[in-house]
Amino acid sequence: MTSADLATRILNREPRAAARLMRLVDDGAPAAREVLARLSPHTGNAYILGVTGNPGSGKSTLVNRLIARLRALDQTVGCVAIDPTSPFSGGAILGDRVRMQEHAMDPGVFIRSVATRGNLGGISRSTPAMVQVLDAMGFDWIIVETVGVGQDEVDIVRLADTSVVVLVPGLGDDVQADKAGLMEIADIFALNKSDVAGHARLQREIRAMLALHRQARSDAESWFPQICPTRASEGEGVETLVETIFEHREWLEESAPLELRRRERAEHLIALIARTELHARLQHAAQTDLIKELATRLVDGQTNPYAAADQVLEAILKASS
Amino acid sequence: MTSADLATRILNREPRAAARLMRLVDDGAPAAREVLARLSPHTGNAYILGVTGNPGSGKSTLVNRLIARLRALDQTVGCVAIDPTSPFSGGAILGDRVRMQEHAMDPGVFIRSVATRGNLGGISRSTPAMVQVLDAMGFDWIIVETVGVGQDEVDIVRLADTSVVVLVPGLGDDVQADKAGLMEIADIFALNKSDVAGHARLQREIRAMLALHRQARSDAESWFPQICPTRASEGEGVETLVETIFEHREWLEESAPLELRRRERAEHLIALIARTELHARLQHAAQTDLIKELATRLVDGQTNPYAAADQVLEAILKASS
Repeated sequence: MTSADLATRILNREPRAAARLMRLVDDGAPAAREVLARLSPHTGNAYILGVTGNPGSGKSTLVNRLIARLRALDQTVGCVAIDPTSPFSGGAILGDRVRMQEHAMDPGVFIRSVATRGNLGGISRSTPAMVQVLDAMGFDWIIVETVGVGQDEVDIVRLADTSVVVLVPGLGDDVQADKAGLMEIADIFALNKSDVAGHARLQREIRAMLALHRQARSDAESWFPQICPTRASEGEGVETLVETIFEHREWLEESAPLELRRRERAEHLIALIARTELHARLQHAAQTDLIKELATRLVDGQTNPYAAADQVLEAILKASS
Repeated sequence: MTSADLATRILNREPRAAARLMRLVDDGAPAAREVLARLSPHTGNAYILGVTGNPGSGKSTLVNRLIARLRALDQTVGCVAIDPTSPFSGGAILGDRVRMQEHAMDPGVFIRSVATRGNLGGISRSTPAMVQVLDAMGFDWIIVETVGVGQDEVDIVRLADTSVVVLVPGLGDDVQADKAGLMEIADIFALNKSDVAGHARLQREIRAMLALHRQARSDAESWFPQICPTRASEGEGVETLVETIFEHREWLEESAPLELRRRERAEHLIALIARTELHARLQHAAQTDLIKELATRLVDGQTNPYAAADQVLEAILKASS
């Protein structure tokens, strides 16, 4: 199949064609780029929702409920779930299949997991591509589900129009510290497992941090992060959460023109792809003998790590000019 | 102070000199490189222990206990704690100060937190430098404490001779999936909070996964990951954990010559530094108008994200040749 054919089939919303392109992306096939370039003019219409939460926060269950609720509102939904498994292994995950079953018969839903497969920049290569594909397929909403706050994931979260951070009671003090950082990305906090002990305390803490944060902010125009208690396992609080997401969307559409947001997202996307490409080149260099030779010289005291790294860079730059 | 003076003072184990160098590293000062290059010949002697665990796993408490135990065995210990706070903010953390207090009067202990400060590659720039500094200062052990399994942290964990993964009962199914990945880095599992409900179940699960993993492994010579129940808050199980760490160390020293391990670590370090430098250049490019212009063209449909990213790379490569 030519890349034009594949692009056409994706624009016709054929899930198998989308899956095929994603395999090409995962394999780093040059054809993937051609197809993505063809899809590019058809993107920019989806609303991107980021959902971030630690393992154990019930984030996946919540995303499932969000999908169901958006479907009830007649919205189509594509979902990219970034897999927590894989920095160290290429192992498969259970969650995806379970979820696929629930929505398997619904053509208005498309879910795909992205695993990093132990590759440097695996998340950053696959996820923007997947978002582009879902966007070109014409889904109204794209949900990007991420775990935690690694650098790769930060980049992904920044592609979202609205960011929901999922927290649960009962995690340790490390998490408390972490919350300060989350303030900067969360448009909405979903405080999940509202039936669990400590939920009221968690809510108080977040409220207190938000109040502090508000004092520090000068502009009265900015969005004030909202708190939504949820109990995803029972579907409780999900309607209100979706309403709050729509409120944030309205606020966003009033305060920043679509044009501006598209340009910002484009900047971010270009930088992300450029970074991923640099990673790939470095990884290629690691497979040559150059780094091995430099390592031997380093151990023998004939160089230092910084001078050696410079030589690697020089080789990468030469190779590509 | 010249870089030679600063290096000398660090080799004399002056904590203030070490702290000063780390500030230079954090600020990206060119002088930092000079000092690190001078320290390089004095490194390679420390034994590096990685301790990885999710927020809330009690990892920091456990590390404190490990430090105390190693001190009781007359070993000096440097510790780098990678801070979970900071991908989104430059916020300060509480943990470090608390810990500093406990060991503040002991010249055989040096602890420092590394925050990412929202910078791309913040962890990967500061941590190897910090490990080098502690190594040059002559500490017998260097403990590198990391949270979770982001890509930056994977790279750091791979610098360790022995890796301890801290798990606790009661996290969700996402974590179960995650464990498969942890198999590949864990030399030892510390199952912490041994008094908490679900601990026996967690232990069974890990045993079952290890058994599966063992079947998949062909070489009988390889280390079989050990399980150590701990209750760090009370110090329970810490002695056995330290004994197990020493067992792994002995196994390692018998099975792989120091020379080989040093070379592998050198390779890894060189690649890590090269990657960090590429990040820095890309970040610099993001601050110019080039990406903005390309983003505008992308939104106007005059380019696609991949062609635009290529132009960014070209500019980076030109700038540095």
